[in-house]
Amino acid sequence: MRPSGRNPADLRPVTIETGIIKHAAGSCMIRCGDTHVLCTASIEPRVPPFLKGSGLGWVTAEYGMLPAATNTRNRREAQAGKQSGRTQEIQRLIGRALRACVDRVALGERQITVDCDVIQADGGTRCASITGGWVALRLAVDALLKTGDIRTDPLVDHVAAVSCGIYGGVPVLDLDYAEDSEAGTDANFVMTGRGGLVEVQGSAEGAPFSRDELNTLIDLAEGGIRELVAAQKGCLA
Amino acid sequence: MRPSGRNPADLRPVTIETGIIKHAAGSCMIRCGDTHVLCTASIEPRVPPFLKGSGLGWVTAEYGMLPAATNTRNRREAQAGKQSGRTQEIQRLIGRALRACVDRVALGERQITVDCDVIQADGGTRCASITGGWVALRLAVDALLKTGDIRTDPLVDHVAAVSCGIYGGVPVLDLDYAEDSEAGTDANFVMTGRGGLVEVQGSAEGAPFSRDELNTLIDLAEGGIRELVAAQKGCLA
Amino acid sequence: MRPSGRNPADLRPVTIETGIIKHAAGSCMIRCGDTHVLCTASIEPRVPPFLKGSGLGWVTAEYGMLPAATNTRNRREAQAGKQSGRTQEIQRLIGRALRACVDRVALGERQITVDCDVIQADGGTRCASITGGWVALRLAVDALLKTGDIRTDPLVDHVAAVSCGIYGGVPVLDLDYAEDSEAGTDANFVMTGRGGLVEVQGSAEGAPFSRDELNTLIDLAEGGIRELVAAQKGCLA
Amino acid sequence: MRPSGRNPADLRPVTIETGIIKHAAGSCMIRCGDTHVLCTASIEPRVPPFLKGSGLGWVTAEYGMLPAATNTRNRREAQAGKQSGRTQEIQRLIGRALRACVDRVALGERQITVDCDVIQADGGTRCASITGGWVALRLAVDALLKTGDIRTDPLVDHVAAVSCGIYGGVPVLDLDYAEDSEAGTDANFVMTGRGGLVEVQGSAEGAPFSRDELNTLIDLAEGGIRELVAAQKGCLA
Amino acid sequence: MRPSGRNPADLRPVTIETGIIKHAAGSCMIRCGDTHVLCTASIEPRVPPFLKGSGLGWVTAEYGMLPAATNTRNRREAQAGKQSGRTQEIQRLIGRALRACVDRVALGERQITVDCDVIQADGGTRCASITGGWVALRLAVDALLKTGDIRTDPLVDHVAAVSCGIYGGVPVLDLDYAEDSEAGTDANFVMTGRGGLVEVQGSAEGAPFSRDELNTLIDLAEGGIRELVAAQKGCLA
Amino acid sequence: MRPSGRNPADLRPVTIETGIIKHAAGSCMIRCGDTHVLCTASIEPRVPPFLKGSGLGWVTAEYGMLPAATNTRNRREAQAGKQSGRTQEIQRLIGRALRACVDRVALGERQITVDCDVIQADGGTRCASITGGWVALRLAVDALLKTGDIRTDPLVDHVAAVSCGIYGGVPVLDLDYAEDSEAGTDANFVMTGRGGLVEVQGSAEGAPFSRDELNTLIDLAEGGIRELVAAQKGCLA
Repeated sequence: MRPSGRNPADLRPVTIETGIIKHAAGSCMIRCGDTHVLCTASIEPRVPPFLKGSGLGWVTAEYGMLPAATNTRNRREAQAGKQSGRTQEIQRLIGRALRACVDRVALGERQITVDCDVIQADGGTRCASITGGWVALRLAVDALLKTGDIRTDPLVDHVAAVSCGIYGGVPVLDLDYAEDSEAGTDANFVMTGRGGLVEVQGSAEGAPFSRDELNTLIDLAEGGIRELVAAQKGCLA
Repeated sequence: MRPSGRNPADLRPVTIETGIIKHAAGSCMIRCGDTHVLCTASIEPRVPPFLKGSGLGWVTAEYGMLPAATNTRNRREAQAGKQSGRTQEIQRLIGRALRACVDRVALGERQITVDCDVIQADGGTRCASITGGWVALRLAVDALLKTGDIRTDPLVDHVAAVSCGIYGGVPVLDLDYAEDSEAGTDANFVMTGRGGLVEVQGSAEGAPFSRDELNTLIDLAEGGIRELVAAQKGCLA
Repeated sequence: MRPSGRNPADLRPVTIETGIIKHAAGSCMIRCGDTHVLCTASIEPRVPPFLKGSGLGWVTAEYGMLPAATNTRNRREAQAGKQSGRTQEIQRLIGRALRACVDRVALGERQITVDCDVIQADGGTRCASITGGWVALRLAVDALLKTGDIRTDPLVDHVAAVSCGIYGGVPVLDLDYAEDSEAGTDANFVMTGRGGLVEVQGSAEGAPFSRDELNTLIDLAEGGIRELVAAQKGCLA
Repeated sequence: MRPSGRNPADLRPVTIETGIIKHAAGSCMIRCGDTHVLCTASIEPRVPPFLKGSGLGWVTAEYGMLPAATNTRNRREAQAGKQSGRTQEIQRLIGRALRACVDRVALGERQITVDCDVIQADGGTRCASITGGWVALRLAVDALLKTGDIRTDPLVDHVAAVSCGIYGGVPVLDLDYAEDSEAGTDANFVMTGRGGLVEVQGSAEGAPFSRDELNTLIDLAEGGIRELVAAQKGCLA
Repeated sequence: MRPSGRNPADLRPVTIETGIIKHAAGSCMIRCGDTHVLCTASIEPRVPPFLKGSGLGWVTAEYGMLPAATNTRNRREAQAGKQSGRTQEIQRLIGRALRACVDRVALGERQITVDCDVIQADGGTRCASITGGWVALRLAVDALLKTGDIRTDPLVDHVAAVSCGIYGGVPVLDLDYAEDSEAGTDANFVMTGRGGLVEVQGSAEGAPFSRDELNTLIDLAEGGIRELVAAQKGCLA
Repeated sequence: MRPSGRNPADLRPVTIETGIIKHAAGSCMIRCGDTHVLCTASIEPRVPPFLKGSGLGWVTAEYGMLPAATNTRNRREAQAGKQSGRTQEIQRLIGRALRACVDRVALGERQITVDCDVIQADGGTRCASITGGWVALRLAVDALLKTGDIRTDPLVDHVAAVSCGIYGGVPVLDLDYAEDSEAGTDANFVMTGRGGLVEVQGSAEGAPFSRDELNTLIDLAEGGIRELVAAQKGCLA
């Protein structure tokens, strides 16, 4: 039995509230159960040096966690003087995931930075950041389309993410913190609205896992992603 | 005329919503017009080295601003690798202000860290942090009193803060960003519920100011603080 | 056609030379084609703070690249003042992968640090680091068994890693730099000697990939890992 | 009774010696009792990026303390790898205070950096830095006027600073270290030669203070500033 | 008696193996007994800012030590976040030494960076770095001459280095770690192929040394340098 | 002819003024021509970790330069966030030099930190720091002898330092900045009061130097050191 009483293929309740921050081109608060992430997308008229003059745009992401977001207060990274390896790994993943649905020619030579700040954490913060980050990106791109700054929609599909894992020997969808800290295998899947795989990351925490188990996890993820994409569509409707 | 249409002695609308973060001992979101600050108070069983074995408690504060909180995206300090001088100055002020109402013997040898994270900024973020931070601190202390971890209430009074300034030659209360960036003199006042002064900080931005002007600013601040203390009481009732 | 003329399921020539560094408990130079990594394992009698007194051991990894290892000189991280996000991500992966085959009770309260320093890079450095790092770890553990410092072998299986990708539309094994920089999908697989999955990481670089493609990549990886485990056995015989 | 035997409204003996450093455009050693600060002003032909092309000049300040300046040796900040929050707060204050008397159009597009290095500390180092820093700035500006690099004097008035506080229940002027570490309220005042207020900073260290007490502190400060401005004039005569 | 059984004027066996790294313009592995240093020379088309437009070239050096190179694992400097004072002192010495034989006009406006990475340490790593670094530099310059990028050979002589010291009261050549850690006086000499002195660094570790002792150490060094220059010539033949 | 009109064997005028800083156990301002260094010695009751429980004392040094000490303002290292390689090299040299005259058993398990801060620079700052640093150390040790904290004088001799160089083809003593920036060879010598060599550092800036030239430089240094030791004795008398 899952600590939350959910069935193996159940997502936590998902809500996505848009228009949270007046200064950001796009913003939303995504809540996956008790995991709450504020996602914003800011447009800047410049690109990183390696793209200068290329005509191509760039989408990048940054990730942070408020000190009180976790069970015991976590140290503020600005105070520590650096981002942890975990933070850097997560923000690299979010950036890669979001770029997978972007036509960088259509975006034109500008950068959109998607900031994902975890307000409250209960497992699955990187996946919620991707799913919510896509909504913020969508809203920012809509603003550019509306003003005529860009003509062709550079977002070619939805992108969403969900975690799966083997908890108590049973493959389950969308782990919360209680499950995540006990899971034997932990995996994150990023997929497009049409079901293509963008990123697959599976780690054995104890015993190795088999190809059959990997396949079951992907089955679960496909179901979860469908619901998350529906939630993205719902909040934008 | 003020850009917002307010009268000189008008505060912006204030709301304080408590119980925002489930992991923090105390938390609230304070909204002073378009300035929104999430304040949390976390209790730790240890004190800084200079207080070890003294029997005295400690209250400290940290301040941060989300990258998208401002008009143009501000650089994430964790990325930059250090907190700016402005950030350090503000968090030192918040900590001093909150300690002014704490009986550190009654608190006992424990530390409460108040984190103030600006979600959206429109002027007056340090003052909103103090006013909201006091509420988070109050809630954390209430939790300690309820569990019996402490017996005597260590909070001897309310503490709240408000800014004033000379805008267009007229002394006004509670500057928003549009006023703050144009104000001739800018001052922050921290006071207790009984009206005692905890901190006075006034700066001439252009021409020096007179003692008469300083006195008018304090008059305005006293009125504002009374309303803010009422809002603190209201949200806790 | 692959730039190197290899067939899709061909590994690059692999050699593993042991006993490279006289001070390290275990060491080897692994050469996968033109990718050369020096792997060492150092034993220390202490563990990280979170394991103190637990009786459990720890295995961790660090990764570095000599400035002249790449086509154009890369900046020395010690000079830059920090490890890049990429470096941290890789060394976290190596550590996780190696710990997957370690019985930490049998290891006892000591730490083994596996350093993987890339002498020359031509793609696949993180996979070579894991495969070579396991050999260094094996040698260090053998030393501990020989002196009687530990009684039960804490290494429960081999661990090796290989990359796969979709190059020119064709799934291929063990990408070199020329392929890696052009590949549509890039994946790394870490497996045990008995074929269990330890880590799966697949990223779409352009178009998303399908479950069928993922399955083909795993098939290729299984063949490659078998050869790499044979090479590990060969160098230790 | 004050530890030094001074009356409440007595400054410590002040001397300002000019022409200390041959390389600096302006320099002085200010001694306020046992607080000794070396102040220099260096002229550079460039301004910060945000002023480039504006025609406006800039005055900024940096503050430091030699390790042996204090009772027990304080750690060298260059060794620690960063300036403390206190140091940054002080140098921001000095810069703001000095800019209050500068006509930045008349200064023209150049920067003057005022360095204030505390050689020996006995309380009131930030105030001594402002008073001495103004003399160094005055001398550097005089050099620019003499060479004809600027035509109109950009210094519109004197600026000086003094601390006051409530010591043993009595408001006193110009606290030394023995008083400062015991004072109930601690305030710093920056004023112009004509008596305008440039900066007011008052902090309750224990109990809050009243408006009457604040007024008494300002009365004391006005007397002190008059003497300090006279000392500035004296050393330049 | 020396721990290694060598006579006072004996070098350790020296071998220099070239062509170690395919990406570097010049590279070698120098082995002085158990001290092994990988030296590479990388050519870049730009010079440091202070030489821009001067027509002059630049040669600089960086030094590092693999964590497992020493008896007990030394902390990775990239992890520590900075290069130690010792590292910086050594790489400044290597750079100065190599520049002593370079005609910077003939080199033209380009930079050659010589990286010296200690793979295994047994005393004398800075001297081995200079001797091996010169070979890498020679090979990189040969490449530039061969392609016609430069016309006149900018290397005007050989440069090599050796340590000497007073061990057990006896002046000896080329200290290994066992001697170095016990030596009363420790000196490093850098000389040209024609015997000119480039750098002399002698330190008393306990009692001061006399001019006679210094002269004996130079005599020993001259002999050692002659052999090292012969080894340089041998590996290039 | 030397720019200052001095003869080759002439030192610049030297003065050493003691008792500069009231908080330091020992302090002096040494002036070698226009090079002015403030040297202080602070006693701390603890030693570095590697000496804990050994009964041995430690003497260490730190070096800094005020921003306005040089011709053009140099960047404050505390602001830059790290000490330069040059600074670290110099403070390591000062520490080694001073330890050469210390009986660390007699000193007992305590640390003396000698801070050398350059107030004004005109060449030879490291040598002036050593010569002045020894005086500060002497005064701090005298204080310990006077209070009876130590019984046997741990300073076994004087230590002083001077630079020499080949300027315009002529070996000269005690280079000032104008000479130093043009000198062909630059050397620093640290010697004891009895004439023993503690440290010899000679660098060819252009052409190599010969053993004869080195000997002439040592002759000059011996004369200079005798005068500096006399100045040390004079200021302490």
